[in-house]
Amino acid sequence: MMALDDRKTNFKYIGTRPDRPDGLDKVTGRARYGADIQAPGMLHGAIVRSPHAHARILKIDASKALALKGVKAVVTRADFPTGLTGEDWNLQENVMAGEKALYDGHAVAAVAASSALIARDAAKLVEVEYEPLPHVTDVDAAMRPDAPVIREGAADYSVPEGMHPNVVRRIEFGRGDMDAAFAEADEVLEATYRTEATHQGYIEPHACLAQLGADGKGELWCCTQGHWFVRRMCASVLGLDASQLRVTPSEIGGGFGGKTTIFIDPVALALSRKAGRPVKIVMSRSEVLRATGPTASASMDIKLGMKRDGTITAAQGTFRLQGGAFPGAPTAETMQCAFACYEIPAILEIGYDVITNRPKQAAYRAPGAPMGAFAAESAIDELCRRMGLDPLEVRLKNAVKEGSKSSYGPTYPRIGLVETLEAAKAHPHYSAPLGPNQGRGVASGYWFNWGGETSVSMAVSEDGTVQVSVGTPDIGGSRASMSLMAAEALGIPYENVRCNVVDTGALGVNEPTHGSRATYASGLATIEAAREIAGKLCQRAADKWGIDAEAVIWEDGCAKPSGPNAGDFPPMPIAEIAAEMGQTGGPISGHFEATPNGHGGSFGTHIVDIEVDPETGRTTVVRYTVVQDAGKAIHPAYVEGQFQGGAAQGIGWALNEEYIYGTDGRLQNPVFLDYRVPVASDLPMIDTVIVEVPNPGHPYGVRGVGETGITPPLPAIANAVAGATGVRLRQLPMTPPRILAAIQANG
Amino acid sequence: MMALDDRKTNFKYIGTRPDRPDGLDKVTGRARYGADIQAPGMLHGAIVRSPHAHARILKIDASKALALKGVKAVVTRADFPTGLTGEDWNLQENVMAGEKALYDGHAVAAVAASSALIARDAAKLVEVEYEPLPHVTDVDAAMRPDAPVIREGAADYSVPEGMHPNVVRRIEFGRGDMDAAFAEADEVLEATYRTEATHQGYIEPHACLAQLGADGKGELWCCTQGHWFVRRMCASVLGLDASQLRVTPSEIGGGFGGKTTIFIDPVALALSRKAGRPVKIVMSRSEVLRATGPTASASMDIKLGMKRDGTITAAQGTFRLQGGAFPGAPTAETMQCAFACYEIPAILEIGYDVITNRPKQAAYRAPGAPMGAFAAESAIDELCRRMGLDPLEVRLKNAVKEGSKSSYGPTYPRIGLVETLEAAKAHPHYSAPLGPNQGRGVASGYWFNWGGETSVSMAVSEDGTVQVSVGTPDIGGSRASMSLMAAEALGIPYENVRCNVVDTGALGVNEPTHGSRATYASGLATIEAAREIAGKLCQRAADKWGIDAEAVIWEDGCAKPSGPNAGDFPPMPIAEIAAEMGQTGGPISGHFEATPNGHGGSFGTHIVDIEVDPETGRTTVVRYTVVQDAGKAIHPAYVEGQFQGGAAQGIGWALNEEYIYGTDGRLQNPVFLDYRVPVASDLPMIDTVIVEVPNPGHPYGVRGVGETGITPPLPAIANAVAGATGVRLRQLPMTPPRILAAIQANG
Repeated sequence: MMALDDRKTNFKYIGTRPDRPDGLDKVTGRARYGADIQAPGMLHGAIVRSPHAHARILKIDASKALALKGVKAVVTRADFPTGLTGEDWNLQENVMAGEKALYDGHAVAAVAASSALIARDAAKLVEVEYEPLPHVTDVDAAMRPDAPVIREGAADYSVPEGMHPNVVRRIEFGRGDMDAAFAEADEVLEATYRTEATHQGYIEPHACLAQLGADGKGELWCCTQGHWFVRRMCASVLGLDASQLRVTPSEIGGGFGGKTTIFIDPVALALSRKAGRPVKIVMSRSEVLRATGPTASASMDIKLGMKRDGTITAAQGTFRLQGGAFPGAPTAETMQCAFACYEIPAILEIGYDVITNRPKQAAYRAPGAPMGAFAAESAIDELCRRMGLDPLEVRLKNAVKEGSKSSYGPTYPRIGLVETLEAAKAHPHYSAPLGPNQGRGVASGYWFNWGGETSVSMAVSEDGTVQVSVGTPDIGGSRASMSLMAAEALGIPYENVRCNVVDTGALGVNEPTHGSRATYASGLATIEAAREIAGKLCQRAADKWGIDAEAVIWEDGCAKPSGPNAGDFPPMPIAEIAAEMGQTGGPISGHFEATPNGHGGSFGTHIVDIEVDPETGRTTVVRYTVVQDAGKAIHPAYVEGQFQGGAAQGIGWALNEEYIYGTDGRLQNPVFLDYRVPVASDLPMIDTVIVEVPNPGHPYGVRGVGETGITPPLPAIANAVAGATGVRLRQLPMTPPRILAAIQANG
Repeated sequence: MMALDDRKTNFKYIGTRPDRPDGLDKVTGRARYGADIQAPGMLHGAIVRSPHAHARILKIDASKALALKGVKAVVTRADFPTGLTGEDWNLQENVMAGEKALYDGHAVAAVAASSALIARDAAKLVEVEYEPLPHVTDVDAAMRPDAPVIREGAADYSVPEGMHPNVVRRIEFGRGDMDAAFAEADEVLEATYRTEATHQGYIEPHACLAQLGADGKGELWCCTQGHWFVRRMCASVLGLDASQLRVTPSEIGGGFGGKTTIFIDPVALALSRKAGRPVKIVMSRSEVLRATGPTASASMDIKLGMKRDGTITAAQGTFRLQGGAFPGAPTAETMQCAFACYEIPAILEIGYDVITNRPKQAAYRAPGAPMGAFAAESAIDELCRRMGLDPLEVRLKNAVKEGSKSSYGPTYPRIGLVETLEAAKAHPHYSAPLGPNQGRGVASGYWFNWGGETSVSMAVSEDGTVQVSVGTPDIGGSRASMSLMAAEALGIPYENVRCNVVDTGALGVNEPTHGSRATYASGLATIEAAREIAGKLCQRAADKWGIDAEAVIWEDGCAKPSGPNAGDFPPMPIAEIAAEMGQTGGPISGHFEATPNGHGGSFGTHIVDIEVDPETGRTTVVRYTVVQDAGKAIHPAYVEGQFQGGAAQGIGWALNEEYIYGTDGRLQNPVFLDYRVPVASDLPMIDTVIVEVPNPGHPYGVRGVGETGITPPLPAIANAVAGATGVRLRQLPMTPPRILAAIQANG
């Protein structure tokens, strides 16, 4: 672990690696996940899904299903309110099809019954009469004039007349004189890159238990990254008052962005309202793959100019993303992140958000960024190899730093890209010898991070231990990082803090654990709440001592008289103040609500060695090193875990994972045997280097670390494959057949 | 409903009678009570209880129980930490006996098994070897020199040398020259009054689900009036950090004070820790009656002097209460409330807290007050009847008012006794004719009420609806009263507020819903939190309008420019501000933590007509009217419900309910067939008059109303029986055999 900032020497708890508070519960099976929640009289729900990629729904006849013993309710879109617009309508249409089924797996009805088995049987008895329509699932095909129209009127103002109605948004930005800048270049590369949709691959399928009364009051327990988002979305889709729906998150078995939206939740609520009983729905894996929110697929044209000394003179890109049957592909993020690492005088980026007959995409770790990085960082590498330049030196030469104007507009505050590039260059991995059929690739990547609406409360218990109430579900160890920050701010042992993820009914609004924001934003709020508590503790001590509160400081978990009063009284520990708090003014709590906007972007640079079997095209990840700026690593082990997790998911995306649609528009591989995520035996130990360039927007310098790590792997691996084979693959995943074909085409 | 204060004309929502928010859930069976909570892998616990009133525990052999298939753990006192002192030790000793079993039903071991049936079978297989010891269950018998000693060293400093070790506390207070004051009286009465122990009789037996890890982190779901009390007590008894135990309350099927302490909760936690699985325990009714916390029984000597004009010149009382095998009988409260309604120049009260071989008493609605009122108000009535004085006039003549020095010391702030007496006198009931064998009784009563540690948070949702997070479980409709106060304070519809009772992990410390404090203290905190929110809403509007926040007022749910800016901008409703709050500074919440001490005592006066069948002694409650000061009735229907509920419980206590111990020291009637609470057919419609003398210590004038109502019924009914029969019963309950015997003794 590198120490690039001297702030850290002041920390007592931050930077240590204690056990996570939820560890024992999770390894002993006591932690309750979505499917573990139960209620008396609970029914089980099952969803009827379209077998067609695109079809008009002519009639739904549930009479046979309702006649089955144990069936208590069937809902269709008719059980949802009408008149929604914009994203609310999109959400509602996605959770329950209206006039048309828009993709294979689209929900068209749902059944609640006394057992899960009966519900599944009953779902098969719901008779849906479809009129199949022509479909399209590929982004480029969907833009062609002859493509079937998925929905008229979905496009916004930005789309020029004459484009296919499937193009729903056009984005353009740039600066500089493109022609002049390309003319300055010694080499210009033009190429097209393609990535397939991938799924977040969380271990835990979506699950919820819902209860909704005819009075509009409801409760929902679900597996989610953000229960306030779930509350707001379900309230919109069902026409409820947000405050009347109380949403409690379960533990979460992975989300990676895919659990920031809703699928089954409003359906379970609607079934509950109709049946008058709690309703539980647990998705199967094939439902997860067919009908939740994978990422977008992309088709991207890059034109890049570079001088012989490695200076990038101009970059141009056209980015076409499909995000399923609804607007919302992360096209802007793809564009913004593609060249975010570099100072380039002339930039032109054009993007299209395209709808197809696929499930509505959802966020997936640094949404959109990996595709853009794949295109841009592959192109840079191609030019480096063509001109014999060191790829890290070229990146250093063009790297953005504090004060640089980013490719997408804003000027960067203090950032750590140069530091990660230098750490990568200095890492033994970068200079280690390669074996036969091995290649080394490097790539950098960026993710903005996010602040977002945040509410945290903290309270002192009667024995002087402290609890932190946060609204950001703990996915990657945030209970530990919040506890560490609270311990640091209050000067009390880590073990004396408990961090609770509380329900929507107990705290103000919180955005989800997304955008790499939890440790940054909930952490900042935790520190501020602790400071409020420390101030109140000082006040209580001052009252007892009969001195002014200004003359009391909080240090090492104690109130201490200071200044002219220093030494007049012995330090008063938190436990002593807490024991009397009921009699000295009441309970002591601290609160913080804000939308912090001082989040600092995180840059990373990855080094990977890939060995390719020239006879089969099989790839082996021989060595992998992640170097990334954490700002300040609160709990280094969990930072490393995020680095490794991002790399592992990127490796899967680069080498194996993809949504495969048949000509019938149906997903061909909706199971983990066919949709192949990397398993332990596919991966080497992933080495990590934590760079710490403090974020000036956080009291302890924290940057979010969760997302950047998935951005460099796609190009880094393509670059390594190019090194190992001499052929450049511009389409992901680089499966053995594709690599073999490329080798053979190359001769 | 009487209107004695003009404040109420300002209210828009306060004083209306909307449906309670939890109503639909409760009438449709969706509300989850203690026994409804489930967890995967849950075990069921059963408790092994002493069949002896007093016995040394020589040996506990659990080997046969552990050998039963499905049994996962057995705990005894050896599984609890040692070294506790004071009330912590008492709690621990009561939840699990140590060297001795101290009462019939005392827990001596507990079993966790895979089903409730197996657990109960296994409990029978736990072999406990006892050495029975002499026992005592009557308070007077326990004070006699020959009484068996229950525990040496339990007495505190207040007990004079030479008293029996079962007397654990002596209290004395008074003022004035007693001899002179009695000499001034025209009549002096001396009599002894006795009340038996009664049980709160809540419908829902205690139930909990507990999970505790070897890491000291736990979760507990339970039916309780106060989950922070449960947390603190369980943490003490088990040696845990309070913050590491998260306690979530279920809905509660009655408590009346009996659910402010712990019985099964730490046992379930200990079983869970040992078995490594969640453990549920649900008490049976006989366990509830044998081994939870009934009220104390009392034996009281009263000496009262009165002038011919009704002036009370002197009052003397000796109050002996037994509260089971542990210190803590509400002797002080009995003494303080006995004469709290009157200005008496000379007072002397002496009290004794006595331990016996009975279960540890717990709070029961106005703990101690009904016994004292029974003695004092019966004595006053006896003198009135003897001297032919109107009992209401006598009460009015001696009644305390603002500025009166109370019998127990403090000077009263604004109080409403005179107003209740005048309302009672004016009520048609008081002048209605009586039928044959009917008598009319009146009595007044008092309860202090309580503030207590209180934390409330309030948050605005994105759609402008609002949630209130409170820590006081909703027993008598407090979700409705909090919602009304929040609606009033924010000027938004009642339906736009949701009040959530949140777990200990989500809020600062809260005392239970006890001491008639919830509507007063959580209400005050709710109003203060709403005011903080209103201020923030004004700030957001001011920022948007570009004017000073001081120039914005909050009115009718909108920010409005005022003063020189009045009319410059249209009112900005809460929904409009809420929709943008994420972008204008973040979530909007309000918080309030305090130990409010402005609670106002509540006085009540009851009128009851009783008909007695002279041949059988059977009583019929013919007519009943409760007149009580509510300060300000937030939701009048629930205030009336509290008045009626207090009267109903008092009627039971007066006429039928009692703990009957056999000579073997075992409870003879631990089922509702034998322990007879009044049912609907036993009661007339209880009429109510809400008097409103605002409490100056609450923003809306609220006084707690829950407890006072149980104080007058005991003497009021005894006074009515005296009127109907001409005989004075000084021992409760006034069962038909006792009344018949008294009539026959009288000739």
